[in-house]
Amino acid sequence: MLIEIFDNTEVKNLGECVFKSPIPLSFRDSSIFANFVKDSEKILFDSKIDLVKNHQDDLNKTPAFELGGPRKYLHFEPGKIACGIVTCGGLCPGINNVIRGLVNSMHYWYKCDKIYGFMYGFRGMVEGNEPEPIELNVKTVEDIHLKGGTILGSSRGSQDVKKIVDYLEKLKISILFTVGGDGTMKGANDICNEIADRSLDISIVGIPKTIDNDIVFVEHTFGYQTAFSAAVEAINSAHVEAKGTMNGIGIVKLMGRDSGYIAASASIASQDVNYVLVPESPFELEGRDGLLNLLKKRLKEKKHAVIVVAEGAGQDFFNSSEHKTDQSGNVLHNDIGMYIKDRIKEYFDDLGIEYSIKYIDPSYMIRSLPPTPIDSMFCSNFAQNAAHAGMAGKTEIMIGYWNGKFTNVPLSSVIGKRKKINIEGDFWLSVLLTTGQPRYMGNDIILKSKNKGG
Amino acid sequence: MLIEIFDNTEVKNLGECVFKSPIPLSFRDSSIFANFVKDSEKILFDSKIDLVKNHQDDLNKTPAFELGGPRKYLHFEPGKIACGIVTCGGLCPGINNVIRGLVNSMHYWYKCDKIYGFMYGFRGMVEGNEPEPIELNVKTVEDIHLKGGTILGSSRGSQDVKKIVDYLEKLKISILFTVGGDGTMKGANDICNEIADRSLDISIVGIPKTIDNDIVFVEHTFGYQTAFSAAVEAINSAHVEAKGTMNGIGIVKLMGRDSGYIAASASIASQDVNYVLVPESPFELEGRDGLLNLLKKRLKEKKHAVIVVAEGAGQDFFNSSEHKTDQSGNVLHNDIGMYIKDRIKEYFDDLGIEYSIKYIDPSYMIRSLPPTPIDSMFCSNFAQNAAHAGMAGKTEIMIGYWNGKFTNVPLSSVIGKRKKINIEGDFWLSVLLTTGQPRYMGNDIILKSKNKGG
Amino acid sequence: MLIEIFDNTEVKNLGECVFKSPIPLSFRDSSIFANFVKDSEKILFDSKIDLVKNHQDDLNKTPAFELGGPRKYLHFEPGKIACGIVTCGGLCPGINNVIRGLVNSMHYWYKCDKIYGFMYGFRGMVEGNEPEPIELNVKTVEDIHLKGGTILGSSRGSQDVKKIVDYLEKLKISILFTVGGDGTMKGANDICNEIADRSLDISIVGIPKTIDNDIVFVEHTFGYQTAFSAAVEAINSAHVEAKGTMNGIGIVKLMGRDSGYIAASASIASQDVNYVLVPESPFELEGRDGLLNLLKKRLKEKKHAVIVVAEGAGQDFFNSSEHKTDQSGNVLHNDIGMYIKDRIKEYFDDLGIEYSIKYIDPSYMIRSLPPTPIDSMFCSNFAQNAAHAGMAGKTEIMIGYWNGKFTNVPLSSVIGKRKKINIEGDFWLSVLLTTGQPRYMGNDIILKSKNKGG
Amino acid sequence: MLIEIFDNTEVKNLGECVFKSPIPLSFRDSSIFANFVKDSEKILFDSKIDLVKNHQDDLNKTPAFELGGPRKYLHFEPGKIACGIVTCGGLCPGINNVIRGLVNSMHYWYKCDKIYGFMYGFRGMVEGNEPEPIELNVKTVEDIHLKGGTILGSSRGSQDVKKIVDYLEKLKISILFTVGGDGTMKGANDICNEIADRSLDISIVGIPKTIDNDIVFVEHTFGYQTAFSAAVEAINSAHVEAKGTMNGIGIVKLMGRDSGYIAASASIASQDVNYVLVPESPFELEGRDGLLNLLKKRLKEKKHAVIVVAEGAGQDFFNSSEHKTDQSGNVLHNDIGMYIKDRIKEYFDDLGIEYSIKYIDPSYMIRSLPPTPIDSMFCSNFAQNAAHAGMAGKTEIMIGYWNGKFTNVPLSSVIGKRKKINIEGDFWLSVLLTTGQPRYMGNDIILKSKNKGG
Repeated sequence: MLIEIFDNTEVKNLGECVFKSPIPLSFRDSSIFANFVKDSEKILFDSKIDLVKNHQDDLNKTPAFELGGPRKYLHFEPGKIACGIVTCGGLCPGINNVIRGLVNSMHYWYKCDKIYGFMYGFRGMVEGNEPEPIELNVKTVEDIHLKGGTILGSSRGSQDVKKIVDYLEKLKISILFTVGGDGTMKGANDICNEIADRSLDISIVGIPKTIDNDIVFVEHTFGYQTAFSAAVEAINSAHVEAKGTMNGIGIVKLMGRDSGYIAASASIASQDVNYVLVPESPFELEGRDGLLNLLKKRLKEKKHAVIVVAEGAGQDFFNSSEHKTDQSGNVLHNDIGMYIKDRIKEYFDDLGIEYSIKYIDPSYMIRSLPPTPIDSMFCSNFAQNAAHAGMAGKTEIMIGYWNGKFTNVPLSSVIGKRKKINIEGDFWLSVLLTTGQPRYMGNDIILKSKNKGG
Repeated sequence: MLIEIFDNTEVKNLGECVFKSPIPLSFRDSSIFANFVKDSEKILFDSKIDLVKNHQDDLNKTPAFELGGPRKYLHFEPGKIACGIVTCGGLCPGINNVIRGLVNSMHYWYKCDKIYGFMYGFRGMVEGNEPEPIELNVKTVEDIHLKGGTILGSSRGSQDVKKIVDYLEKLKISILFTVGGDGTMKGANDICNEIADRSLDISIVGIPKTIDNDIVFVEHTFGYQTAFSAAVEAINSAHVEAKGTMNGIGIVKLMGRDSGYIAASASIASQDVNYVLVPESPFELEGRDGLLNLLKKRLKEKKHAVIVVAEGAGQDFFNSSEHKTDQSGNVLHNDIGMYIKDRIKEYFDDLGIEYSIKYIDPSYMIRSLPPTPIDSMFCSNFAQNAAHAGMAGKTEIMIGYWNGKFTNVPLSSVIGKRKKINIEGDFWLSVLLTTGQPRYMGNDIILKSKNKGG
Repeated sequence: MLIEIFDNTEVKNLGECVFKSPIPLSFRDSSIFANFVKDSEKILFDSKIDLVKNHQDDLNKTPAFELGGPRKYLHFEPGKIACGIVTCGGLCPGINNVIRGLVNSMHYWYKCDKIYGFMYGFRGMVEGNEPEPIELNVKTVEDIHLKGGTILGSSRGSQDVKKIVDYLEKLKISILFTVGGDGTMKGANDICNEIADRSLDISIVGIPKTIDNDIVFVEHTFGYQTAFSAAVEAINSAHVEAKGTMNGIGIVKLMGRDSGYIAASASIASQDVNYVLVPESPFELEGRDGLLNLLKKRLKEKKHAVIVVAEGAGQDFFNSSEHKTDQSGNVLHNDIGMYIKDRIKEYFDDLGIEYSIKYIDPSYMIRSLPPTPIDSMFCSNFAQNAAHAGMAGKTEIMIGYWNGKFTNVPLSSVIGKRKKINIEGDFWLSVLLTTGQPRYMGNDIILKSKNKGG
Repeated sequence: MLIEIFDNTEVKNLGECVFKSPIPLSFRDSSIFANFVKDSEKILFDSKIDLVKNHQDDLNKTPAFELGGPRKYLHFEPGKIACGIVTCGGLCPGINNVIRGLVNSMHYWYKCDKIYGFMYGFRGMVEGNEPEPIELNVKTVEDIHLKGGTILGSSRGSQDVKKIVDYLEKLKISILFTVGGDGTMKGANDICNEIADRSLDISIVGIPKTIDNDIVFVEHTFGYQTAFSAAVEAINSAHVEAKGTMNGIGIVKLMGRDSGYIAASASIASQDVNYVLVPESPFELEGRDGLLNLLKKRLKEKKHAVIVVAEGAGQDFFNSSEHKTDQSGNVLHNDIGMYIKDRIKEYFDDLGIEYSIKYIDPSYMIRSLPPTPIDSMFCSNFAQNAAHAGMAGKTEIMIGYWNGKFTNVPLSSVIGKRKKINIEGDFWLSVLLTTGQPRYMGNDIILKSKNKGG
């Protein structure tokens, strides 16, 4: 449960806010006419009334997030600072929209005319690494949201933090926006530490980016809705192919290294999936209650089946010594999609049952899409809130999204954690009810579950 | 402000719940393993912590909604009842998905094999009106979600309530699902009253349907995201056309009888709109700060402009005696889009300025779409929660959606109210910041606003 | 029949071709290895063998077009000339692709580094008219094909030909590419005459652009397939809306001033249309065989109907004195869509029959689209063939497309003619068979047809 | 060259045509009013006038196809026969449209009310094989065109021809429509032979289906335009991914067993591809002019590259003993996409150059799509012409499409041949000019080509 790993840490500020915001908003207590937000405004972790009752004695201790949004007084003087943007990790729909939103917000609202775009992730934040940072302005970003990807390029892996801070100092950057996932947040945190050590007046604001939707304290990340919507089309294809031949089996492998959100959402939305395999829910292939036997029974009755498998599912089938890590430190998974495909082949070949498998891996076709209009708005909002936070001198934070509101969340509350599907919660229940698959697939797993459930 | 019109009315139940739910869920206190929901579970109206603090003395009085979801004990015996579905009012993406979701939920979960679909709205609920109700089952609804519209047809206007209840009795219907907007909810409430008068054991559960997103206590209605996403394409067209000629003006008229949500959201998402006109924000055409002069200044500088106008905007330009109502009692609006188009023509013709106007009204092209995958899931969820509520004997309710959760809301709390854009809130602020249009367009309006603001 | 208005006029050349093409192609007689095209290569007007047999005595007199394509020897020296591009008339999917194709072809193949883009049609070809021509290069056109419209802007109407040629002389332009419809071709022809009068060495090459697909000797124009494909979606919407209410009538008004190609193609492709009304086929509303009575009979049986009407259909319903012309000299049509809508309303109101009409006019939403991949290729091909023709010194021509090949067609063979649907041919037959509508709608029309047919 | 393998074989007819067509068309010589087609009407193989001149002495010997279309007199009596449909081989957009078109044409035009759909290809044409044939009518096919795939299912491989003809006899089928590729045409031909041996009055009409567009004498097959248009999106993804990292390489593997049409068309349409590899054009990886070195040079300059590879390209890299065949007898190709990916990895790893490869295989996502509106019309036309041909008693034919007209082509002229890209023709030239890749990639290949060219 996410609430169990939530700490009510306060957001860190660089210092005094003495400059008046140039945004033409009002700010009056006890009035609805208040677009400026006060630091004291908080949003509850859980909107169920029970949570509040548990803290009835001291409501200030109720788990809650600092609300994001424009502040009336700023730490940095509008029109006087430079800022930088870096995008890291794998592609995800909407990165260009975030870049555009940052540039537009910093330019139109905060009069910032010096905006550096670092090339190819943290790699471009070390002086001397080619290519050099480019200067961004409202003209250069005018049409970038029409295309997927990131105009800044991206990369995985970290760089020498001292060199990065040297370069920030040299370029006189006051706010650095880091767009990335857990690894990027860790990197941002390291930069924050070096900045603190040097007592520099530089704010670091993270914007969460993950195709897997696995960053804690972010209800859903930008691009996620675009991604699972596109995944529905891949599932449709698998369904059509599966129905197109006798005993057709369509397998769709989707993103989801540690969390199966895309696989689960796309399967619910499609309504044509029979088995969803995600990292959070162990399963077996063999045995009466294993996938293979279930599949055999289904084909007998329905003549076709669709399986959706998240890339991080079933990693316990592989010898742990086989696991490697990528440059960002993420565990490189063995290919569970191909593994399952091979095992199914073997199984039906042995049984002499006619079948046909169609395997679809749409990963890069999804990651590279431009966002839907909804995600497009969502990206702009993340960017705007990041600009507000940075100008107010907030630092060591990530912009969160919770109960429909944007928040400022301390990096320390976030890094090293993963949001995962609660397989005993409502969302996974929807998957079970939509697919009709059993809650536990496999004898051992049923056994373990029973013991635990005891 | 919505909270000011919120009443903490309790949800009405038909009576005892003695039948065990056939859905294989668990239900344990103080455990996460609990997919069944208790009637006592509530969701806060506002997740800002300030709201709670205002009711610190008696937290039970904090404005909150009853949480929707499956109940462990049911009022109606699974497998023993008949139910009915009726769809009313204008089209909206996702109605077929709601129908399909209801049929699937009632069949697979609650073993209901007698599901009537009434044809063409309340009209089909009077015995003798052709065509007769059709019987729905999982096979007949299998592929209906691939198409927009409603397979049941729809109509506006009410019918004799006594005849409707006669027919419900005759068909032995225990749960009636009414899919529609404010007029439909009123109709449903009238049916409820007749049912109460006759002391019948029939539950009426409303599912909110409105392309305008103007039903209170529903964060956003199904089809709304599909609708404004599609509206973005119409705006793109207007933008391309406007840029295609010297002093090109693109006007897009969008749905929004009393509330400008679609116009506003689509404009934010598109980022190419210069003026958004909605019912909530009065504006003038003439004068230094009126639309016409602003437009002239923009064309001089940029050579093109895009205007989005909601159908209910600027109705004060028309003589009130000209207003008529449709069969549902909705005020029929004068055509503000054509009015503005004509006034702009007149204005630039008089000035002798070269210009070109392209007028786009995509209304029916949007209403008739099938839903996006996200809305598709959302429709299923509405349907599922309606099925749960009906089987639990809840009645005189509408399924709401609040803070990301589905709720059971008394009809009496809903009917006759309209959700409107708070033009001093964050959402409208996003419109102003995206378009760059002034908060008040027109001298009188500025004046009035200043006096009020005093 | 098109062949009856075809004249076998030879293509005009500016003069000798002495420069070797820099394109690395071969050219050998009696070999397949021959990407260069000779001026003597011709393509038959009609590939039915009967046509040829009619000219058996002198096959050279068989109606045929000069084949387009790269010539080995050029009139203009590669790398030494400037060229210009102008886009005129209404928008159509693919204009930006044509511009991009011209720039890329002239730059990469013919080393041309001076390419002027005239702004807002012929208007921008008169010196002094703001804004001035812009310089185009491969960088400025890199991403323009992602958007609909034309980056050069467009306008209707002609300008002083002498001033245009003055400007061409001043800018030292050797090839002018004019992208437009019949009016533009006339304008181009006038420019040609002035150029001839002054004995200038300037080539004018037209690229046919018309959303109506009504330019003679062009099998289908670029953007046409995109347009009717998009129109199918509007028809789908009308169909969904029509089915959504009792006696629902969906009316879709489509482009087609003099020729109903889009209306006809979209109706065939959609398969949901019941009546297609085009300029080529007169029809009546009243009487036993008129549209209104047919509609009444259909509603009685099927409860819904879909009508597609081209903008130029049924103009004989209007008093001819009401007709005006636009700046390009095109007759401005009375609004037949609204006329039919009003007449249907009147008819069913009088009869007291319940009905509902949904009217859709998607015109600008279609014109402003970017092209489909197929049209995208097609645009490139038109542009490439125009570049080849211009460099070879061909002038007073339009690039045609016939029997799947690109051709060079003299402007004099084209201007003032219109391609129309042969209502006794196979294409219109497909419409009749798909819709089930009678060949002649209306008593008088049947009578006239019989007499004529006699 | 296709013309070299063309034989002017006459179309075979079952016998006399004595029944008048119920389609309300006219048919008069020397008149335009003639929708019925006579068997003597022919369409030239090549519309270039040179071809005709070569046969000036006897124009009847000019290569030409019999024109398809409705005949005035029919061999089979309308309303008195049964027919059957079978779909074979891999999926392709539009099969359901063809099925729907056949059912609608046979029902509405030829009053046929007994239409069998054989399940899962030829497999379902043997009595006893489950599942049994289903009966098709206009109601069952009403909405099938909204989905990709085939409602009849498909399979590869042949069956006992005698048993198939036994079943045709038993079911009293007079016309069998076979939808499939080269293997299916061979199968159809075998059935024809058995029918001839038994002197049965059964017509077999083939409709060409191939995602690879490799059937001879069919300008392009149905689904092909849909397929390459969808492939453009996969290429866009690869391009976005390639640009998203330093030295990013996007590889897209596309359909194209023996012919690279989809790879080539999609690459031209996308304009973002740098290297297209097809079966028709051999290439090398090593050496100065090999792919690897070219790639290295490009990355140095541009930092990204996109490669499109057809599945049948570069099969000479594999040991011929490794080739297997599928059930239809098609050679199963070694995976050239993965091979190239691995070789590129190896190459840049050895060189110590940073790079990133993204591999996309969209095959099943393309095959399973519903057709675009254009392909949708095209499918209907194939189906209609097949119905016309069958009713006229034509047999042992495939419906062709040539110079924009539908034709009747003898199966014997088609089977065992493959349409391939002429790598010295205009189409491949467009690929070369669009990608900028050299005509010959690899030293040996250049050498061979020079010798040959000598």
